[in-house]
Amino acid sequence: SRSINLAVIPGDGIGQEVVAEGLKVLSAVLPQDVKLETKEYDFGAKRYHATGETLTDADLDSLKQHDAILLGAIGDPSVPSGVLERGFLLKLRFAFDHHVNLRPSKLLPGVATPLAGQPEIDFVVVREGTEGPYTGNGGTIRKGTAHEVATEVSVNTAFGVERVVRDAFARAQARPRKKLTLVHKNNVLTFAGHLWTNIFTKVAEEYPEVTTDYIHVDAATIYLVTDPGRFDVIVTDNLFGDIITDLAAAVSGGIGVAASGNINPTREFPSMFEPVHGSAPDIAGQGKADPTATVLSVALLLRHLGYDAEADRIDAAVAADLTERAGQPARSTSAIGDALAVRVAG
Amino acid sequence: SRSINLAVIPGDGIGQEVVAEGLKVLSAVLPQDVKLETKEYDFGAKRYHATGETLTDADLDSLKQHDAILLGAIGDPSVPSGVLERGFLLKLRFAFDHHVNLRPSKLLPGVATPLAGQPEIDFVVVREGTEGPYTGNGGTIRKGTAHEVATEVSVNTAFGVERVVRDAFARAQARPRKKLTLVHKNNVLTFAGHLWTNIFTKVAEEYPEVTTDYIHVDAATIYLVTDPGRFDVIVTDNLFGDIITDLAAAVSGGIGVAASGNINPTREFPSMFEPVHGSAPDIAGQGKADPTATVLSVALLLRHLGYDAEADRIDAAVAADLTERAGQPARSTSAIGDALAVRVAG
Ligand SMILES: CC(C)[C@H](C(=O)O)[C@@H](O)C(=O)O
Ligand SMILES: CC(C)[C@H](C(=O)O)[C@@H](O)C(=O)O
Repeated sequence: SRSINLAVIPGDGIGQEVVAEGLKVLSAVLPQDVKLETKEYDFGAKRYHATGETLTDADLDSLKQHDAILLGAIGDPSVPSGVLERGFLLKLRFAFDHHVNLRPSKLLPGVATPLAGQPEIDFVVVREGTEGPYTGNGGTIRKGTAHEVATEVSVNTAFGVERVVRDAFARAQARPRKKLTLVHKNNVLTFAGHLWTNIFTKVAEEYPEVTTDYIHVDAATIYLVTDPGRFDVIVTDNLFGDIITDLAAAVSGGIGVAASGNINPTREFPSMFEPVHGSAPDIAGQGKADPTATVLSVALLLRHLGYDAEADRIDAAVAADLTERAGQPARSTSAIGDALAVRVAG
Repeated sequence: SRSINLAVIPGDGIGQEVVAEGLKVLSAVLPQDVKLETKEYDFGAKRYHATGETLTDADLDSLKQHDAILLGAIGDPSVPSGVLERGFLLKLRFAFDHHVNLRPSKLLPGVATPLAGQPEIDFVVVREGTEGPYTGNGGTIRKGTAHEVATEVSVNTAFGVERVVRDAFARAQARPRKKLTLVHKNNVLTFAGHLWTNIFTKVAEEYPEVTTDYIHVDAATIYLVTDPGRFDVIVTDNLFGDIITDLAAAVSGGIGVAASGNINPTREFPSMFEPVHGSAPDIAGQGKADPTATVLSVALLLRHLGYDAEADRIDAAVAADLTERAGQPARSTSAIGDALAVRVAG
């Protein structure tokens, strides 16, 4: 008999609320014979204030035992900027080598977008997750003085770039349009830019059916608002991916519906699935948060674990629910979760 | 009697065409008593192919003699990515210490925007121009092998950050809404982020009338499409500024109308004014390019040199012309230039 041994990290703010709905839908969609085991972890601001810890080696050992991780959101204004981001979220992505940060963007019929004319949007960003300016390399000298110098080092390796570029080509090959766009800034960041561009060009030879192009990150933001339909799969660096996926989420229904997977395709370590949005402390505890992004992240999780039919059922349920939402009064977090749970079970 | 001694760099592609119109409008707007002298420079792809040179020390010595520089666009597909960008454009910005890269975004009535609902947009981005990931620091080892490592170093100094932050506060103070937003990614790029945030907070104390806030660059792209009206003045790092100003241009009328100034406020070296758009080789030589961004860059140039009334006349002429364009067939590059020249003279 099959089983899923899931680590659950509700985290801060609305994280608790949205994760509860994600689990509700997960339980509803799984076939009877699949045993779902969950273990909750208390990472986040509360634990940090109580113990000063963000993520210990023992925590990592424990998390390693799971098949996958579901994360709500981490972050609170009471904690200095960077402490939980670097000390928990990025530490985990790096420790578990989550090099494929997968972020699909699909504008569903009837869903509100800030763009005029309801354009067709259906692409996926493959963001590198373990290199670039996110490595924490760099430092500060003469801190706090008029002569302070602070550096940030973007580290890019052939190994790290090639594996994510290969993943993106494979994804593009599997999609109907078979198109892959490299987004970088190779005219200014020439060292990293050449590495990315050369590897992209080399791997492209193995995928003759995939149409490729290259766009500078600044120009990519223009296309994302003027012609988002041109994108199918995008592969990009960690920081550029961070920036363009927030924009992509905004134009394709908002961060309320933007899901992501921090994936280790080798399965050496568990992958982690989380909504793109943050902990939104301003609306926490009020039942106002939209759990849809978390539910869609559960679908990514299921697909990663090989439960494709169940993932499809969630996607279909969300699409149907979103289409029905247009013009209706906003529902509570749990009402949306209930509705989705009913749909996926039905 | 007054005079302007202008260096003119048409550059590549549509650069030639748009600069011609910029000069047309400049001549038309200047009072009789102002003597306009121009010297044209042949920088760009042609010179690079002919001589291998992009910008020599002798060129810099010559450019230094001018009061200001008007640039069309530099770049051509025949030149490898990065050669002209680093070898000319960035070299000049760094050599002349253009640390204030000024990029206004104003959506004029009737002008097309990809955003639904024609939001009010009127802000200016003060992009740092001489530091960050643009310094060219970094390098590559084991190039072309499976073990290649490429680094890019973002260099940030208290000196460099403070001067641009001060410039931005002064601009915010002078505007009706008096609001300044710092855009960075201080939760991940903690070394540079703390430097920027600390200096921003420190300088803010001297400007009690200026309302301040901080937004991560990823979230800033969301606000730029969902609530651009929230911005008044933005100050940001070189790379983040590059990215968000292309997006800002896209939502506020397109890069056809986005102007910029590479300003050295100390006046130790001439400042340079240029449209945000590139050389657009696909439409070069066809009279299709919109010269409006160049004409608006001429207005920034005039304001920098103290010709405020003339700059205002250009802005007003462009606003009137843009409003009239809605629904009309596209005019040629020179037809737009002619119309603007007539308006500013009238
Ligand atoms: C919270 C932050 C560290 C994180 C990132 O920059 O990756 C977030 O913005 C994201 O996109 O998941
Ligand atoms: C051409 C390129 C070097 C330049 C930049 O990145 O600054 C351009 O994108 C700009 O914004 O002026």
